[in-house]
Amino acid sequence: MLWLVGVGISGYKGLSLEAVEVLKNCDVVLIERFTSSLSENDLVGINTTIGKSVKSVQRWYVEDGREIIDQAKEKQIALVTYGDPLLATTHTELRTRAAKASIKTGVIHAASGIASIMGECGLHMYKFGRTVTMMSEPKSAISVYNTIFDNLLLGSHTLILTEYNRDEKTGTLFFLDPVALLRMLLEAENDMRHHVISHETFVVVASRLGTNDSRIVSGKIKSLAGIGFGTGPHSVIVPARLHFTEEEALEALTVCLDSPSDNSKSISNISLQMIERYAPKAREAVRQMREILRQDRDESKGVHEALDNAEYYIDDAERFLRQGRHELAVLSIGYAEGLVDALRFQKGINPWSP
Amino acid sequence: MLWLVGVGISGYKGLSLEAVEVLKNCDVVLIERFTSSLSENDLVGINTTIGKSVKSVQRWYVEDGREIIDQAKEKQIALVTYGDPLLATTHTELRTRAAKASIKTGVIHAASGIASIMGECGLHMYKFGRTVTMMSEPKSAISVYNTIFDNLLLGSHTLILTEYNRDEKTGTLFFLDPVALLRMLLEAENDMRHHVISHETFVVVASRLGTNDSRIVSGKIKSLAGIGFGTGPHSVIVPARLHFTEEEALEALTVCLDSPSDNSKSISNISLQMIERYAPKAREAVRQMREILRQDRDESKGVHEALDNAEYYIDDAERFLRQGRHELAVLSIGYAEGLVDALRFQKGINPWSP
Repeated sequence: MLWLVGVGISGYKGLSLEAVEVLKNCDVVLIERFTSSLSENDLVGINTTIGKSVKSVQRWYVEDGREIIDQAKEKQIALVTYGDPLLATTHTELRTRAAKASIKTGVIHAASGIASIMGECGLHMYKFGRTVTMMSEPKSAISVYNTIFDNLLLGSHTLILTEYNRDEKTGTLFFLDPVALLRMLLEAENDMRHHVISHETFVVVASRLGTNDSRIVSGKIKSLAGIGFGTGPHSVIVPARLHFTEEEALEALTVCLDSPSDNSKSISNISLQMIERYAPKAREAVRQMREILRQDRDESKGVHEALDNAEYYIDDAERFLRQGRHELAVLSIGYAEGLVDALRFQKGINPWSP
Repeated sequence: MLWLVGVGISGYKGLSLEAVEVLKNCDVVLIERFTSSLSENDLVGINTTIGKSVKSVQRWYVEDGREIIDQAKEKQIALVTYGDPLLATTHTELRTRAAKASIKTGVIHAASGIASIMGECGLHMYKFGRTVTMMSEPKSAISVYNTIFDNLLLGSHTLILTEYNRDEKTGTLFFLDPVALLRMLLEAENDMRHHVISHETFVVVASRLGTNDSRIVSGKIKSLAGIGFGTGPHSVIVPARLHFTEEEALEALTVCLDSPSDNSKSISNISLQMIERYAPKAREAVRQMREILRQDRDESKGVHEALDNAEYYIDDAERFLRQGRHELAVLSIGYAEGLVDALRFQKGINPWSP
């Protein structure tokens, strides 16, 4: 049987009573801690608690998995993992392979880093959209930027996890610094220009959560640029519009350098931008057209009908926009412009002259 | 000092070693279990483990919170909660109020129901979009439906939590049955018609996770309609396009009644639907209009110019759509229709007759 046992996020004392029971009964206990902040002390703590020696394994060993699966055919074997055991795809794949080989599997859940970060910042969990990971390679920033944009348009917060690795040979730790991450997002804004990120954007940086040295700092990007955030792991949250209880929580529970503000204020979807730009222009075009008809003494019913309809459709566009039915709003404003411009073609007026 | 202590999702043995230490040192330990599946046995288990009697409190008592805050000024008080302690907004608000009153707070994280459900189904955590809750009142279904639609368009899975309550006076349990939930979603489809939900939609139903009686069933809605899912709590996942490792995991780790399929295949965003529907109609309208002009021997330059432009804009709409510039595509098709319809008004043809 294969057990996947989470140790949570705060050292070996994050093991649950159930986890300790299971580990005590296992023949072999493995631990993979190269992508986590579990220390040598934690290893000793686990050994003492379960009364046997846990074997440290490297990531490739877990990813390869063949020896683990083989042993699980005959023995009770447990893999101890940081956080919740099923949030890493490697562990789910191991569980799938075991199940396919008719090996019984068991899971002991534990505090997950991701859920803990969302909660510790005082933000409402159900308001988070898709989570994304920022790697140190520059092109990673565009996909993070796009996820933030998509989430903001839906009113959702974005949790950005960051690269965090310990070299398995040298033990050297690599982590992405939050200041570098924010600079990468500002550069992505320069490329993409959807008004998603600026020096005024309010963000939350959570560092080393679950350790005694944890810290959560929030503020505008310009206020965070000079801060030394120290060693990782770090996570960054770009919140969408905040509920007042979220604002209060950020102010009370984090090191809050600026008043929390609404990051979705500066972005708007493209439909909104179109209606705001085109509706007044279309109204003015109708007015001018009516003036020309009056001068030409053109009383043909169809022409006036077309102009009346153009006005109805401009109203419709604005109403659909208020209702959040953006596609219908854009369709309506386009239609109204088409109605007016057909008449302009006939009157010999170039619709596209300023 | 106020401690918020999570007990996880699998009964009292979900308490971590750290949680037990904290609770042993507290003067007062409260527990709120009316929105959870913690049993009387779990209560006894906690009492035995920490060597003192835990006091059961009702939800209004936690929401009101004044007595808790008052006691925390003088004493070490802990509130034990199901799952992770910070995923309920009530608990975060309590923590904020304590911090504002200069009361020290501590949090012991634990396995959260939400993270556990995502993991147990074998789906990748980072592919989940916004989580949503389905209540039994019918209008709840529209907002759940819209969240699924938004998530599917971004390629994200949707976790739907369901109403689950125990009446604090009578102890009667209310939970929303998954079959009722799926029926509500099918009804929402009838109203909204975005091709989000059908009898072919592949969904995952997770029931009573963390208990000995837990079960995860996956399959098309039509295959799940006749199943008795038993008592709650239940959650339902509507996955987006699946990675092949997710498909394998669903087949190996859940009671899988149908081959997992891609729920985003049948949906397309509204812009796409509009262009697909309106572009052929607009082309046909241009063709008819040219025929009428030919019969009327109408050779006025402006009219032909308007029709030529209508054709250019229909082409533009289709090109913009291929480029993913959906708003411009809709604007263009609307404009093309307006150009044609202005001429139809003048020829005395009702543009909206079939």
